[in-house]
Amino acid sequence: MSERTIYLDHAATTPTDEEVLREMLPYFSDAFGNASSPHREGRRAVAAVDAAREKVARAIGATASEIYFTSGGTESDNWAIEGVADAYREKGRHILSSAIEHPAVLKALSRLESRGYEVTYLSVDREGYVSVEQAIRAMRNDTVLVTIMTANNEVGSIQPIREIFSAAHESGIVTHTDAVQAIGAIPIDVKALGADLLSLSAHKFYGPKGVGALYLRKGIKIKGLIVGGEQERSLRAGTYNTPAIVGLGAAIERATASLEENAARLLDLKTRFITGLKEIPFTTVNGGANALAGTVNATFSGVRNSELLFALDREGIAASSGSACSSGSIEPSHVLTAMGLTKEEVGSSVRFSFGKENTVEDVTATLDAIKGILSRLRESRDLFLQQKSNRYEG
Amino acid sequence: MSERTIYLDHAATTPTDEEVLREMLPYFSDAFGNASSPHREGRRAVAAVDAAREKVARAIGATASEIYFTSGGTESDNWAIEGVADAYREKGRHILSSAIEHPAVLKALSRLESRGYEVTYLSVDREGYVSVEQAIRAMRNDTVLVTIMTANNEVGSIQPIREIFSAAHESGIVTHTDAVQAIGAIPIDVKALGADLLSLSAHKFYGPKGVGALYLRKGIKIKGLIVGGEQERSLRAGTYNTPAIVGLGAAIERATASLEENAARLLDLKTRFITGLKEIPFTTVNGGANALAGTVNATFSGVRNSELLFALDREGIAASSGSACSSGSIEPSHVLTAMGLTKEEVGSSVRFSFGKENTVEDVTATLDAIKGILSRLRESRDLFLQQKSNRYEG
Repeated sequence: MSERTIYLDHAATTPTDEEVLREMLPYFSDAFGNASSPHREGRRAVAAVDAAREKVARAIGATASEIYFTSGGTESDNWAIEGVADAYREKGRHILSSAIEHPAVLKALSRLESRGYEVTYLSVDREGYVSVEQAIRAMRNDTVLVTIMTANNEVGSIQPIREIFSAAHESGIVTHTDAVQAIGAIPIDVKALGADLLSLSAHKFYGPKGVGALYLRKGIKIKGLIVGGEQERSLRAGTYNTPAIVGLGAAIERATASLEENAARLLDLKTRFITGLKEIPFTTVNGGANALAGTVNATFSGVRNSELLFALDREGIAASSGSACSSGSIEPSHVLTAMGLTKEEVGSSVRFSFGKENTVEDVTATLDAIKGILSRLRESRDLFLQQKSNRYEG
Repeated sequence: MSERTIYLDHAATTPTDEEVLREMLPYFSDAFGNASSPHREGRRAVAAVDAAREKVARAIGATASEIYFTSGGTESDNWAIEGVADAYREKGRHILSSAIEHPAVLKALSRLESRGYEVTYLSVDREGYVSVEQAIRAMRNDTVLVTIMTANNEVGSIQPIREIFSAAHESGIVTHTDAVQAIGAIPIDVKALGADLLSLSAHKFYGPKGVGALYLRKGIKIKGLIVGGEQERSLRAGTYNTPAIVGLGAAIERATASLEENAARLLDLKTRFITGLKEIPFTTVNGGANALAGTVNATFSGVRNSELLFALDREGIAASSGSACSSGSIEPSHVLTAMGLTKEEVGSSVRFSFGKENTVEDVTATLDAIKGILSRLRESRDLFLQQKSNRYEG
């Protein structure tokens, strides 16, 4: 096994930036107070939490009082969807979403369905985009919420939520977007997007795990999900996770500042990688042009993705078959399936997601590794088929 | 203002132990993989999460497969109560609890009440204990859950849950205890206690904030609260917070190993402190003898606790008026109220909670500070009353 890892799974998680970690460190053992406590130690924590809240707000065009800290993207998604559905239950029980949402959205919707809500899941085209027209047609008088992701986590497709949310607002429908994959990758302004709620998670942009935020536009009603103490204006209970919140603030500030430069670098790597992939026989790149700069999803016909991933891993290259959150699952990717890929194609597809520490050399090494592995896998299969055929002939 | 802080608010939160933090550090930026990812980086994270799970299990007499990681005590409490209520809804809709639970329990119960459940809140005596007899009398055929805290967070009273849970089991009732204040302070064995579910939170015993666990005895049913990916046997979704989970494991291992020694030290400090308090006129110590070694709650008659806390804070002494989670609230302590204290007594009560870095000198300095502050406050009030009386007379 190779010692060095070429990490191409940034869509699953990123390392915490060393500078971000350095900003977090004082809040573990020194300024460790409970931000709800009425003394100096408490006030030091409050000041740190408030500063981080300002940074998150600034990064997405919100005001600080519209930012609520959570334990991560999954909690933010669950809370947004069920909290809005509960708060607007008198208005209606219909929700509009898409077939390619993250499981944190889909499972929350499915829980609402079991409580009598009706959900319309918009289909996507071959490149992984929902249609604005279909979305508008699906809006009803009893629609209380539209929830569509900003960018997909498996193929990177950036959704036309601005147009959809604008139409939703004309009908008085609340809008939520899961921006977990988008923050740090593309510019996000909640006002420009027309998002009433937006979920984000620090570990996707070089911040720590276990912390996220929900943007909740002023005036939008929501019920709490995690209840207890009076934290977060009594809407999200639990002791403030000060170090992680500080890390989220530091990470989003850095991600926003370096966004353009970082995206340009990633796009260069992605373009080189795709060019290389297209030279490999029986290989198709999934998704369209309007996509996250770091994400590539490709189908290697005739090869099982688990075999390819295993072989890549042995050579120190980390990629994945799609969402890490589903990799414990035996179900094939619901995203690629919704895009119209066959079960066999889905089972031959791999996601590569680049990050800021990747280099042109990583791209070359990965392409070489893929070529070598594919020829070995195909050779052994041909050998197997040949032996099998010999046996029948013999 | 004094530069040094005498921190006497360990019941609100504790600093992360430097050794614990050291064990966490590699998992931020080095072994940062997503524990659900199918490659080497993912496996390093899985191994760390598994090792921490073993440590938590060992500390409370459980097996690793009975431990579920959460974002903290509040989530664990919410999940345990609502998840069990939902899973056993066909059996009944009655829950037995107490009047002195943490808001994370009370708010979850109140949400269930709004959904048609009925909750009996056991009262407590003057020292803060529920009665085993009353508890047994309150159990009904449709009781699905008994949830009573192991030890109270404001006065430290250790509840007779072993006896209550034993009776509950005879009637086939599921048992949950919020052990957030108890872990690390008293020995906890889930089997001996008869707890089917138990909530704990790392930052109460020198672990990091933002991570906790729920013990769920094998065979007990529960519905998920945070849903999405397939993590935690599909019962708790969200990317594993590997560094924090490692910190929880390290902290609970250390807390358990040093429990006896630590408790003996704290008891010595508490005894000295209470002896000193009893010498101060118009001062009463709340709670009984079977209590956490680190927690002291006292009423200073005729003095507002906010004034006393403010003055202590100016002298660098950090204490609190009760639960940090309620200090944003204008409501007086529900715990002291349930114990029969008058509104005025509740408003004159302060919680001091000692920790392992406190010394005998801290106790002496705090007693001296209290005496000085009380005489100043009482003097100025006498002066005020005298002026007022002069004015009326003039």
